[in-house]
Amino acid sequence: MFELKATDLAGRIGLLTTKSGTIETPALLPVIHPSKQEIPPSLIKEIGFNAVITNAYLAFKNKGEEARNNGIHKTIEFDGIIMTDSGGYQVLEYGDINVNVKSIALFQEKILSDIAVILDKPTGAQLDRDYAERSVELTLKAAKETLAVVTNKEILWTGPIQGGVHLDLIERSAKETSNLNFDIHALGSPTEIMQSYDFKKLTDMIITAKKHTPSNKPMHLFGAGHPLTIPLAVALGCDLFDSASYILYGREGRYLTDYGTKKLKDMSYLNCVCPICCSLSLKEFISLEKETRSFQLGVHNLYVLIKTVNDCKEAIREGRLWEYIGIKAKAHPRLWEAYKNFSENIEFLEDGVPIFKSKGLFLSDIVDNSRPEVLRHKMKMKNNIRFRKCKLLLLPETMVKPFYKSRIYSNLKKELGSIIDQIQICFLAHPFGIIPIELSDIYPLSQYEKALKPDSDSNLDQDMVDDIVSIIYKNKISEVFIWIEGGYTQRLGEAVSKKIEINIVSSIEELRNKL
Amino acid sequence: MFELKATDLAGRIGLLTTKSGTIETPALLPVIHPSKQEIPPSLIKEIGFNAVITNAYLAFKNKGEEARNNGIHKTIEFDGIIMTDSGGYQVLEYGDINVNVKSIALFQEKILSDIAVILDKPTGAQLDRDYAERSVELTLKAAKETLAVVTNKEILWTGPIQGGVHLDLIERSAKETSNLNFDIHALGSPTEIMQSYDFKKLTDMIITAKKHTPSNKPMHLFGAGHPLTIPLAVALGCDLFDSASYILYGREGRYLTDYGTKKLKDMSYLNCVCPICCSLSLKEFISLEKETRSFQLGVHNLYVLIKTVNDCKEAIREGRLWEYIGIKAKAHPRLWEAYKNFSENIEFLEDGVPIFKSKGLFLSDIVDNSRPEVLRHKMKMKNNIRFRKCKLLLLPETMVKPFYKSRIYSNLKKELGSIIDQIQICFLAHPFGIIPIELSDIYPLSQYEKALKPDSDSNLDQDMVDDIVSIIYKNKISEVFIWIEGGYTQRLGEAVSKKIEINIVSSIEELRNKL
Repeated sequence: MFELKATDLAGRIGLLTTKSGTIETPALLPVIHPSKQEIPPSLIKEIGFNAVITNAYLAFKNKGEEARNNGIHKTIEFDGIIMTDSGGYQVLEYGDINVNVKSIALFQEKILSDIAVILDKPTGAQLDRDYAERSVELTLKAAKETLAVVTNKEILWTGPIQGGVHLDLIERSAKETSNLNFDIHALGSPTEIMQSYDFKKLTDMIITAKKHTPSNKPMHLFGAGHPLTIPLAVALGCDLFDSASYILYGREGRYLTDYGTKKLKDMSYLNCVCPICCSLSLKEFISLEKETRSFQLGVHNLYVLIKTVNDCKEAIREGRLWEYIGIKAKAHPRLWEAYKNFSENIEFLEDGVPIFKSKGLFLSDIVDNSRPEVLRHKMKMKNNIRFRKCKLLLLPETMVKPFYKSRIYSNLKKELGSIIDQIQICFLAHPFGIIPIELSDIYPLSQYEKALKPDSDSNLDQDMVDDIVSIIYKNKISEVFIWIEGGYTQRLGEAVSKKIEINIVSSIEELRNKL
Repeated sequence: MFELKATDLAGRIGLLTTKSGTIETPALLPVIHPSKQEIPPSLIKEIGFNAVITNAYLAFKNKGEEARNNGIHKTIEFDGIIMTDSGGYQVLEYGDINVNVKSIALFQEKILSDIAVILDKPTGAQLDRDYAERSVELTLKAAKETLAVVTNKEILWTGPIQGGVHLDLIERSAKETSNLNFDIHALGSPTEIMQSYDFKKLTDMIITAKKHTPSNKPMHLFGAGHPLTIPLAVALGCDLFDSASYILYGREGRYLTDYGTKKLKDMSYLNCVCPICCSLSLKEFISLEKETRSFQLGVHNLYVLIKTVNDCKEAIREGRLWEYIGIKAKAHPRLWEAYKNFSENIEFLEDGVPIFKSKGLFLSDIVDNSRPEVLRHKMKMKNNIRFRKCKLLLLPETMVKPFYKSRIYSNLKKELGSIIDQIQICFLAHPFGIIPIELSDIYPLSQYEKALKPDSDSNLDQDMVDDIVSIIYKNKISEVFIWIEGGYTQRLGEAVSKKIEINIVSSIEELRNKL
């Protein structure tokens, strides 16, 4: 039912099969209003959305008869995949004694939803713990009640995880919901968190939910429809999204861009080449009659969202999801904060990172020093690599990669002849640390591009000093030679020599004499 | 002839008036081949390019008669603004005794170019200094020869600056070319530098050329047509660009994205919503017959380029050029390297930064600590601000802005009454440093968004310690109180107290007792 095709970080590309067809995830499902939809679902499909979501409660209220008789696909006129949200929010907000968990469940079966959601009790951003706890319990109760009454095995059922900002409640909710064997899980109602750009909190919430649900099931994130939120959530392992943002923003005169929203009236240029933006000027766009403008903005916004989803998928396929999130993160300090905090969750994020990628790593910033591929090498050096030789020569990183093709190594081999076989040779390559020559052509140790040339780091690289000292202790090295070439290795040599006895060399003659 | 409308960093939006109309800069002029043009200029205009460039030498060789009789506009069938490049590159490469500086100049006059370029001697990326020096001299000679023979005052003439990677030669070339009073300046032939992604070198070259030419004239950058290069060059003050990249990439099966190029055949998704990419699937795109594919790719690439230029202009209008370059920089380590190096050229970059902006600053990364608006405040504190009071109270940054609206300040005012008037109150807000309460609502001191909450910086903020010590010395403060609230201010307090006598307080009672 859900087949993984590719992964990077915790993000994945998957194929989700429903009774109305298969959809590739990550996928965003635009919200369709069952009776007051402004942009026709057929146009939404044409833009590239093969699945949509509509609201079972609103369909029940406004189009109950029609939906029961003809099915939801004919009712909203969409022949792709239809998910129905239960309407938990609406029921919570307006109260309605005519519906209950069971009736909403059976209604979704009756109208032949492809993906259905139990009538949950959203926690919202409630800080009140008792309230949050109760919403978790009521949602679990509704989950059990629903699964007990539904019979159509072709419909995929979604079990929402509640708990709001209370991570321990999310954990409990995730664990207990997982036991019920839903087809899909969903993280409930982080809308307010997303609206306040609290990406760090959102990260914690998603990771908690993901850690305590089976990884072979899709994770839906309710209400995410922003070009910064979707990439973050994708990287954290969310597979499905639903949002009415395209039209809500449209009604408010808001224009999505790759990095956020702008008010159309505040803009000076149309930063988009979608069919809408190619067909009219900014001035014309602004002066459209309100309803038409809202419609056109909605369509433009859908184009930006489909591009966002495709960008995420392309980044996963390329193995460049870390780089892509970095670009997005630079667009907003609160997202940068969350991105910077990725280093606290490397174990979780590393899982999906392939051992080999077709593209090299981009290493620009201090944040990149703790990306999974870098830490993986450090762990390997710490836990798996033992040297047989007792002499160690540390050479500076070279621009030529793999390092064994560098001039410095060729010269050493030529000049020292067989002596070199008695020495373990390693290169010092920030941020990887120590790279034994034998590993130097293994991905990504010769497939990376750095912001700074090897010698231009201005400060002492304390991590590298620690790496050197620890590798020497671990490997019972009796003699260490550090090749000094410029300020970076100079500073390293000085710092290491304070902790351990080493030989500093800067020419082959010097090395030969000391050997 | 060239009117500035808005600036940010060294970037600017201008209006350049030619005899065929006015164009808003920054503007990219797609290269049109005078006889073998694949994408019709009319389509290029439709995409949004109101000016193009073509090659005078190639027009002379292939369409000389027609161009002389009917003018270049009819010859290449473009009714917008036409710049003609002289063909210096082609003449250099192939040699041609049938043309010379004078004949190429008069030909450009005859065919009624709107913007013409003298027949220069491109330095290229030649490291040979003698060669570079000679190209500077020959270009200057050609410049003088050209200006001596041309008579049509309606044509704008461009004086190229040569010198290649030799910054002192660029300086000399820029200074001497400036003396000749050209309408437009141009930086010659950094193509190889751009192709090797040496953005730092490119930055140095552009800044050198800009510093030594009059700022009220447009600066053209030859051969820049990449979505990472254009934003960088715009931020550094380049106004005009020309490039054949759209079609050259197209012929190689290369697809432009917002962050670079990809080979169409390596892609998994079309990351674009331009009319081309909306009209066919990736699979269809790949399997197009070569010539059609090259055409369609060319058109797609033009859409990406016009979006890039519009993004730059929007960023200038918004005062978000720093942020925009940061986003682009995260896409490639070599661009990040150049961006990081902006701090070395703050005086140059600061010039165009408005004192007040409509949008707040985004401060995410250590690089942002040296953005012009931040350094401006630091300079102001250092040079212009003197306190009259001799008691100083340093309070931690608050989430509420302006700071005088914070709870901590309201409480102090309420509890201390008139005593507070005898104390100079400042807030400690990284990366700005010290913010006197009187300045706290002046842009951007209450209009910024930071990645980290005030207290979560993990290391000691040495800049802040230095700022505190220096402000105390400068202002003859007799008593200093630092309000401690969490680790950040704790560490600051400890570090400052090692250098100077201070009172540490953490409640109003404590403060009252010590006053």
